[in-house]
Amino acid sequence: MRDLAGRLDLCCINTATLGHREPIERIAERVARAGFGWLSPWRQEIDEAHPQRAGAAIRGAGLKVGGYCRTTYFTADDAVGRRAAIDSNRRAVEVAAELGAPLFVAVCGGLAPGSTDVNADRRHILDGLAALVPTLRATGVRIALEPLHPFYAADRSLLSTIAQAIDWCELLDDGGPPCFGIAVDAYHVWWDPALEASIERAGTRVLALHVCDWLRQTRDPLLDRGMMGDGVVDLRALRRHVEATGFTGPVEVEIFSKADWWQRDPDEVLAVCAGRLQRCC
Amino acid sequence: MRDLAGRLDLCCINTATLGHREPIERIAERVARAGFGWLSPWRQEIDEAHPQRAGAAIRGAGLKVGGYCRTTYFTADDAVGRRAAIDSNRRAVEVAAELGAPLFVAVCGGLAPGSTDVNADRRHILDGLAALVPTLRATGVRIALEPLHPFYAADRSLLSTIAQAIDWCELLDDGGPPCFGIAVDAYHVWWDPALEASIERAGTRVLALHVCDWLRQTRDPLLDRGMMGDGVVDLRALRRHVEATGFTGPVEVEIFSKADWWQRDPDEVLAVCAGRLQRCC
Repeated sequence: MRDLAGRLDLCCINTATLGHREPIERIAERVARAGFGWLSPWRQEIDEAHPQRAGAAIRGAGLKVGGYCRTTYFTADDAVGRRAAIDSNRRAVEVAAELGAPLFVAVCGGLAPGSTDVNADRRHILDGLAALVPTLRATGVRIALEPLHPFYAADRSLLSTIAQAIDWCELLDDGGPPCFGIAVDAYHVWWDPALEASIERAGTRVLALHVCDWLRQTRDPLLDRGMMGDGVVDLRALRRHVEATGFTGPVEVEIFSKADWWQRDPDEVLAVCAGRLQRCC
Repeated sequence: MRDLAGRLDLCCINTATLGHREPIERIAERVARAGFGWLSPWRQEIDEAHPQRAGAAIRGAGLKVGGYCRTTYFTADDAVGRRAAIDSNRRAVEVAAELGAPLFVAVCGGLAPGSTDVNADRRHILDGLAALVPTLRATGVRIALEPLHPFYAADRSLLSTIAQAIDWCELLDDGGPPCFGIAVDAYHVWWDPALEASIERAGTRVLALHVCDWLRQTRDPLLDRGMMGDGVVDLRALRRHVEATGFTGPVEVEIFSKADWWQRDPDEVLAVCAGRLQRCC
């Protein structure tokens, strides 16, 4: 396992951690000044009509782009809605390429608004992912399928476990260079009794490692994520398992925390992230 | 699959559904009058020093006992705490027997208060369960391991999936008559991509089927469960899968709903349960 001490160049800040409060140029400047080597932006921060500017600002700050967040949900009430999602995601893959992001992160979508049919909606998600393959091949961008905590199955993601993500990668495999891999996020997967076995099985399909912490008293499952070290997740063990697959990507901090970290000064948040990455991860 | 139309005698009310607001005698009377054939009480409703009285009241109302809820958490900070949990659960198994309950439901416990070691805590749970075997054999009561939604992994249950519960049953199997099986609760397992395969694999280990619904806009994961038909779970499909294993036990309604159903008149709640069981399950 890599030693993170003094190696913030191996660490990445996902802009969600800072609460999307500033333009990407300003965020990139802060993240670089704090010593991090990587940044993962969200679509709402990028002018997708002119992504070159954001890309230049990030590179100009001396940062690499970890991944681009995230897909429009593939599930929708009808075929028109599903096609619109694919079109949106196709454009985002092109933008990821222009930003220099090797990955586009997929949050797949929960049940369609009127649906109780998990199997049909999962098939629609797979169809939507498959429709992106030509653009993925043309750009060289890969999609990192992110299993979300089962709490979000109804409204955000019918992809809930690493094992399921591996199955989907296998289903989507067309024999060419792999277009799909997996983003392992500590918050979403720490509870999984098959965690170690699934990561081992995922092997080189693991494309991203996201960290934060699960607070024992979590009451808002969406916006109450904890800082590394403040919760119950053995993040060091998780990183060990992931790096045993050969993973050499950055360790990315992604914390949604409306009532706590998003209220603090961004530079303070970055300083705490830096310390906790080295002490707890 | 059994036809539930006009067959409330195949249906069970878990007393949690009524919010634990009345003595067990009064609850039994209401449940029987509403036409149900079964009742599953909680420990706080039973005087465990004199369980015969409650048992007589339930039988006197013409009801059978579905299961007895539930274990003290097996995880604790130290061996003294773990032994106390085993002692408490041993007594509860005896009480279940006196109540005529074929099952004692196990909610296993989350991480011990100071722990981040899921593997150690899971081992402690298994040790605690194994320690109950002599009492289970002596009484004929079986433990129904209930996987809880992964949302509860930190504070309530490190048993999170049916597949894991099967693995635990196999680990606990000592070659004698089976002491352990599984309680399948729609709320906890509906999201599982391996749901159908796991139920099929569980086979005759499925000892209980609990129903309610997952509300799409669930915000309080503990006390905001929905009435059958008000959420996203395909309960009919779930019952079909469970009954395909040969399951012939009652369909049990267990709804924790602080802000809604627990505020309503118990007889109204029972009437709605009766209708929804027949229409949505």
